[in-house]
Amino acid sequence: MSGAHRTGHRRVYEGKVLSVDVDQVVEPGDVAATREVVRHRGSVATLAVDDEGRVALVRQYRYAVDEALWELPAGRRDGDETPEAGARRELIEETGLRAGRMELLAEFFTTPGFCDERMSVFRASGLTPGAAQPEADERIELRWFTRAEIAAMLKDGTLREGKTLVALLMEQAR
Amino acid sequence: MSGAHRTGHRRVYEGKVLSVDVDQVVEPGDVAATREVVRHRGSVATLAVDDEGRVALVRQYRYAVDEALWELPAGRRDGDETPEAGARRELIEETGLRAGRMELLAEFFTTPGFCDERMSVFRASGLTPGAAQPEADERIELRWFTRAEIAAMLKDGTLREGKTLVALLMEQAR
Repeated sequence: MSGAHRTGHRRVYEGKVLSVDVDQVVEPGDVAATREVVRHRGSVATLAVDDEGRVALVRQYRYAVDEALWELPAGRRDGDETPEAGARRELIEETGLRAGRMELLAEFFTTPGFCDERMSVFRASGLTPGAAQPEADERIELRWFTRAEIAAMLKDGTLREGKTLVALLMEQAR
Repeated sequence: MSGAHRTGHRRVYEGKVLSVDVDQVVEPGDVAATREVVRHRGSVATLAVDDEGRVALVRQYRYAVDEALWELPAGRRDGDETPEAGARRELIEETGLRAGRMELLAEFFTTPGFCDERMSVFRASGLTPGAAQPEADERIELRWFTRAEIAAMLKDGTLREGKTLVALLMEQAR
């Protein structure tokens, strides 16, 4: 059920990763507005925790922000797969890790002011190592971090990516 | 200093809130790729905390996700203003609150896989109430939440927006 009445719609860009709509809408409270919206198929990410409480992060160059960032293993959902299946697939592709237990840790919108991306974050335990299977345009470094290292990186600003902060702060509070 | 060499560039959409580029790049590690990038001027948000430790959240319909969400007071940066000036301005517009002390709580990218939006989150204290000054296309509800209410809303999934989760989890850990 939609809370807005759409009176106009234009798809101004249709791409591989995202599309952009410019819609005329009347929102609840009789607010008439033009809204630019980035449409995205949704993302999945995994906080993989080993038996000593260490966490697996991947470092990857992000062109959009021109920086290499430490992040949770993550990616876009593929077609009709469930978020959990997508998270397991991305974890294997980026780290080679196979998860025993998967729990849903958080589901949230990354930036709902202009984008519909929904992020599902899982916590994986009972991990089995294996070979990573990165995509052709991915160069990924995997490293394990202790709780103390994570606490320091949260404090000194080394970690500065949304889903990664949410998951690690939740894990700290556990 | 850029870590990527750009070999092609096309601005496929230029809007009011965002623009979209499709760039051909060679990234570190000699990765040739086409990247779709949403360009955004950056955002600011404020965790406003009163003398009893209660937190001010605003509820607003978000067309992109077709839901009304509880979030930190926030908005886009205006031109050349500093993040702190932007956060103070948005706090007044959306809640009427004037902040005494402002501390930078976190700076992060909301979704760097395809978007350059940088989010600066401040913690405001020493608050003075006043009249809100919402924009023409904003309908905003303000409410104060106790620490116990916030803890319950973090647990039951009521709070499901990135910057809001980051800030409240940091406040909980304080």
